[in-house]
Amino acid sequence: MPLTSHHEITVEWGDCDPAGIVYYPSYFRWFDQATYRLFLAAGLKRDDVSTGQWKEGTPLVAAECSFRRPSQHGERLVIESQVEKFGRTSFTVRHVFRDLTGAVAAEGTETRIWARKEGDARSLKAVPMPEGVRRKLGG
Amino acid sequence: MPLTSHHEITVEWGDCDPAGIVYYPSYFRWFDQATYRLFLAAGLKRDDVSTGQWKEGTPLVAAECSFRRPSQHGERLVIESQVEKFGRTSFTVRHVFRDLTGAVAAEGTETRIWARKEGDARSLKAVPMPEGVRRKLGG
Amino acid sequence: MPLTSHHEITVEWGDCDPAGIVYYPSYFRWFDQATYRLFLAAGLKRDDVSTGQWKEGTPLVAAECSFRRPSQHGERLVIESQVEKFGRTSFTVRHVFRDLTGAVAAEGTETRIWARKEGDARSLKAVPMPEGVRRKLGG
Amino acid sequence: MPLTSHHEITVEWGDCDPAGIVYYPSYFRWFDQATYRLFLAAGLKRDDVSTGQWKEGTPLVAAECSFRRPSQHGERLVIESQVEKFGRTSFTVRHVFRDLTGAVAAEGTETRIWARKEGDARSLKAVPMPEGVRRKLGG
Repeated sequence: MPLTSHHEITVEWGDCDPAGIVYYPSYFRWFDQATYRLFLAAGLKRDDVSTGQWKEGTPLVAAECSFRRPSQHGERLVIESQVEKFGRTSFTVRHVFRDLTGAVAAEGTETRIWARKEGDARSLKAVPMPEGVRRKLGG
Repeated sequence: MPLTSHHEITVEWGDCDPAGIVYYPSYFRWFDQATYRLFLAAGLKRDDVSTGQWKEGTPLVAAECSFRRPSQHGERLVIESQVEKFGRTSFTVRHVFRDLTGAVAAEGTETRIWARKEGDARSLKAVPMPEGVRRKLGG
Repeated sequence: MPLTSHHEITVEWGDCDPAGIVYYPSYFRWFDQATYRLFLAAGLKRDDVSTGQWKEGTPLVAAECSFRRPSQHGERLVIESQVEKFGRTSFTVRHVFRDLTGAVAAEGTETRIWARKEGDARSLKAVPMPEGVRRKLGG
Repeated sequence: MPLTSHHEITVEWGDCDPAGIVYYPSYFRWFDQATYRLFLAAGLKRDDVSTGQWKEGTPLVAAECSFRRPSQHGERLVIESQVEKFGRTSFTVRHVFRDLTGAVAAEGTETRIWARKEGDARSLKAVPMPEGVRRKLGG
């Protein structure tokens, strides 16, 4: 069964735009933060840079989000995240944002690959997802 | 025929993450900038705030992007944008990013509504897209 | 005596740059979030937009920060904030970031004015800080 | 004589906040972009990551900005940049933002060090600025 994690965020002043609602790229920043929390909940460290160099991690191949109701400065939202599909080198994480009434504010997915990079950006290539990672995420 | 616009951006240092590639929410910021350029190309001003108050504009109901090849600091990308579908209150803009070799770096869509807001975020509601706007965008 | 507040943040993946350390404008986003917490701690709501229109708030006239030691993805920092100087229309908030060892990671100030805006950005003007606000912030 | 560069930016929708003016951390993002242009104008590549690993560059030890007049969505600003002080391991870049009328919108400085990093963020240390870099920047 897929592992589920929860990440609570506050809509900050700088996350909003002159329409007084969340500037939509902010939701994708929160997606990325939520996937990091999912990995932490699984006892995994995503995108290790402790050697000073990123060599392996989970870049995206696709992302999509539906915005159900606008949120504004000061609101708190909880993001529920879990892997909904495991491939050989890729996996898809579903994120659902709920406001404090439980209403869905936004929902969507990230499709990530397991990847390594030996040189510049062009050298990035997909590799099989480690079996231990898959198991810890509930796949 | 839909109007097409082009918007060139430089991948800035702050658009990238510790993997040395574009941090993916940056593509959605560029989507939004590219839609603004499409409106300018149509002779339209999107999200007017010259009165000091936003009352009418084009918030999103959905966005999705496929990331084809990673880009890095200092690269220039050109975004080609056009409305690919006109609804009564909504419209979908397609964006294609190409690097200087012409290769597609990323592509995706924004689905926006025409909307008005009289009070806080909850008061936002869809309204029919003005006929003049549709015509200028090529619909 | 000035009121003091504490705001804990996690250094997110997207707050860092290809050098693997915090991209420095992120500290100023955290400054702004910390001032918002200071206002909340004082029982004040900063930059009210519940009517759908911002009319009064605390824009900046100056900001400065010294970066003492680099932080990286996944670290937690606590920001201690208080008003260190009250003027008639302006006030200066000092922010000190400490990592979990207690070492200062960064410190600096924001100088803000109390301001109103009746139309576009050019109409913004400083007004005296309300006496109740000053008192609640410890001035 | 110090080399001077100019960098023109457009205030994007996402650079602004619910007050309808530039969200102030955006100015520091533009500072960083402007310093990158100054290096390009000098024929230098700042913060090389073409090997896939950042090992040497110019992190900040301090930054400050004074905000003279608020700017809003759609405005164009030109940033004039030059090194105003050269130290042994550090240098200070002054940035002045002007709007299209020539009025100063904001101005400030970044103090950067020349630095190397062999491992994680804690391993970062200042090194003497290469003589060729100093000369090309006009020091």
